[in-house]
Amino acid sequence: MSADVVALLRAALGERVDTTDAALQAARADKSGHAASGTPLAVVHAESVADVQETLRIASATGTPVVPRGAGTGLAGAANTGAGEIALSLRRMDRILEVRPDDLLAVVEPGIINADLNAALAAHGVWWAPDPASRAISTVGGNIGTGAGGLLCAKYGVVRDAVLGVDLVLADGRLLRLGHRSVKGVTGLDLTSLVIGSEGVLGVVVAATLKLRRLVAGEVRTLSALFSDVRAAAAASATITASGVQPAIQELMDAASLARTHAYLGLPPLAPGAALLLAQTDGPASRDEADAIAAVLRDAGGTVTLASDDAEAERLLLIRRSMHPAWEQAGTTLIEDVSVPRSALPDMFEAIADIERRYGIAIPTIAHAGDGNLHPNFVFDGPDVPPEIWEAAGELFAAALRLGGTLTGEHGVGVLKRRWLADELGDDQWRLQRDIARVFDPAGILNPGKVFAP
Amino acid sequence: MSADVVALLRAALGERVDTTDAALQAARADKSGHAASGTPLAVVHAESVADVQETLRIASATGTPVVPRGAGTGLAGAANTGAGEIALSLRRMDRILEVRPDDLLAVVEPGIINADLNAALAAHGVWWAPDPASRAISTVGGNIGTGAGGLLCAKYGVVRDAVLGVDLVLADGRLLRLGHRSVKGVTGLDLTSLVIGSEGVLGVVVAATLKLRRLVAGEVRTLSALFSDVRAAAAASATITASGVQPAIQELMDAASLARTHAYLGLPPLAPGAALLLAQTDGPASRDEADAIAAVLRDAGGTVTLASDDAEAERLLLIRRSMHPAWEQAGTTLIEDVSVPRSALPDMFEAIADIERRYGIAIPTIAHAGDGNLHPNFVFDGPDVPPEIWEAAGELFAAALRLGGTLTGEHGVGVLKRRWLADELGDDQWRLQRDIARVFDPAGILNPGKVFAP
Repeated sequence: MSADVVALLRAALGERVDTTDAALQAARADKSGHAASGTPLAVVHAESVADVQETLRIASATGTPVVPRGAGTGLAGAANTGAGEIALSLRRMDRILEVRPDDLLAVVEPGIINADLNAALAAHGVWWAPDPASRAISTVGGNIGTGAGGLLCAKYGVVRDAVLGVDLVLADGRLLRLGHRSVKGVTGLDLTSLVIGSEGVLGVVVAATLKLRRLVAGEVRTLSALFSDVRAAAAASATITASGVQPAIQELMDAASLARTHAYLGLPPLAPGAALLLAQTDGPASRDEADAIAAVLRDAGGTVTLASDDAEAERLLLIRRSMHPAWEQAGTTLIEDVSVPRSALPDMFEAIADIERRYGIAIPTIAHAGDGNLHPNFVFDGPDVPPEIWEAAGELFAAALRLGGTLTGEHGVGVLKRRWLADELGDDQWRLQRDIARVFDPAGILNPGKVFAP
Repeated sequence: MSADVVALLRAALGERVDTTDAALQAARADKSGHAASGTPLAVVHAESVADVQETLRIASATGTPVVPRGAGTGLAGAANTGAGEIALSLRRMDRILEVRPDDLLAVVEPGIINADLNAALAAHGVWWAPDPASRAISTVGGNIGTGAGGLLCAKYGVVRDAVLGVDLVLADGRLLRLGHRSVKGVTGLDLTSLVIGSEGVLGVVVAATLKLRRLVAGEVRTLSALFSDVRAAAAASATITASGVQPAIQELMDAASLARTHAYLGLPPLAPGAALLLAQTDGPASRDEADAIAAVLRDAGGTVTLASDDAEAERLLLIRRSMHPAWEQAGTTLIEDVSVPRSALPDMFEAIADIERRYGIAIPTIAHAGDGNLHPNFVFDGPDVPPEIWEAAGELFAAALRLGGTLTGEHGVGVLKRRWLADELGDDQWRLQRDIARVFDPAGILNPGKVFAP
């Protein structure tokens, strides 16, 4: 039967069906470190909408599961492909089909890398705002599949705010065009938003109409502030929001993440407990805004460094960017992704400290402080997450929910969080969501075992 | 059977069940002028979530259709309630449950008037951006039900960009809490966005968590420019967008709408064909932005008036605001609502002129030019839209679709556009959308005959 499926795929798609061991092994995992059990049947490197349709027709006819995949940079295992499944790679569909600066839109294929798209758009004086930290390596299709966030969201929004429409191939191979090219449009249900963040369980995105912004004039200003502890830094961050000044970036590093990063970079050691807040302003008023933020942070007890030139700004940013490389030396990392209302940020850090104490572990944490999204990191030995780490992570999720937050701000559910999904949605909403997915994919061949698997 | 339903409602809800003739007649129509045939069974004035749940439980048990209703200011007949149906009014549920300026969110009941909400929010230094022209009389719940737009959308977004979550009562009376209180959140499918603009066919919104903005400092600047014809005005509008300056408001009036409004206000007559572009800037750079726009419009051949004080700004705005009162004297008006990509605005005006010529009618048109949303007005005698007007409207919709646009930018489908819905969605997507609605409401008791009725 498996051999039949591969033979059917090969007859239809020829060399684009890849069964080399290297390709099959690579398709089992994403950047979470988690890998599916078993080996996929094949990786299909789709090069056209017709290739995607053909793959899904064969999969539907044979009842074979299909896992759509971009660059494999996800952190929830949503693109991991296992035994008996076809990995459908969209990576080769990476063309920019249309750029319309006058309409502030672009139409692209899903496999284009976010940073490559923005490099091409710059020539037209426009950009696409979603900026996951992975933008240099993640695809636009993957950004859409996860509903990606990033560093600029408080000022520039999330992926859902930056997509006007998608072309979607259903499980049976039919092609639907969802959404609009116009700024406004309310014809029927907003299926475009439903597809964003749906992690491949509704259909395969084969093109997207993106909402662009004009490139902002003005220089970027960067500053950082050291605080005696993380609660003081979190409270200071809330004060920036309350002051009405909107930085483009506002990143927070707790004591554990900061101390190790300082050591990794060979910087002088800091006072125990010291935490860092990093901010960046842009646009025509960036200078005044940076000065205003510096004043707010000094009033809040911070020791402020306002970068005087690009080189100094780079040195400040390097500390934030070196956090993951610094911790990679300590073991395997499970990067978590809770999000809370901004005012709950200090309480969330308190809850993390409490879990650290009770479990006797360090949970180095960075946060996109401007929007309340935290990435607590669990570090352990060996390739698999130990049960006690999952237990601590479960407590983290429960704390986020108690504070009015969510299990996942921007990474998605995938396989790694599916067991907690009903805790947030409630059983009624969980069943309703699963039943909606079944309307798109009645036989359940699209990314089974992800998101809604019980 | 009908008597039984009313008796059951009355036993459960007492005086909140209204069967006075005035209430029943009022529930048959909205501001479109269209009225449902027959008379509703009752109007239920819900005062709590429990009232809504009780109403829906009785409706489900008896198979009685329910039409949710706010202030009845819709323009697509979506809230019109006819024979054998219960009108479920949310108008009395008008409390602000929570305002959190630090989290830039508010939780409100659906019946609150948009302008009343914003008046209350101003005291906290925040506002809710959606601004349909009806904001003084329409409810937040109605704005959510239609996915309302308004005048500020190019700069400040539509309703979908300004709602974090909704509480939804399903057809069977169960209560779901959809969405998040955090800026980011990707847990499962985005049902909040699905509910926005769903016109009451998925469930009844009983509370909403709204995303707020901080009030903008700086003065508002207003300017207008007269052009020799509407295509020149539309082209000038595109030039503003292309210049990178983002006005808060950018409104266009064509020759027919402008000439009659001038006469109505007793202003001097204009050259035949003259069209008007009105723009407003806000925020800290409003003065410079208004000057930049004035320069662009002069270069495009416009005769520019930059208001020197508030009184003059009011006089400029009054022309736009008087358009509908001026045309009310001419007959009954069908207000249409197509939306196209901004660059297609001149072509859309050309298509309207062509329909005017072929049908021998005037179609006075105003446009939210900044976002490509046009309101062509069909004026006729008597209460009902004559068949030839619907035929002309059908050609208008077809032209909008040809130009990459949509049937409805912000008013919705309701009863008035349901027959054209599949033209835009395609049959496959139309059926998929209807099947999704059935997951929420398997028996089809919620707003039947609207949106998806064939």
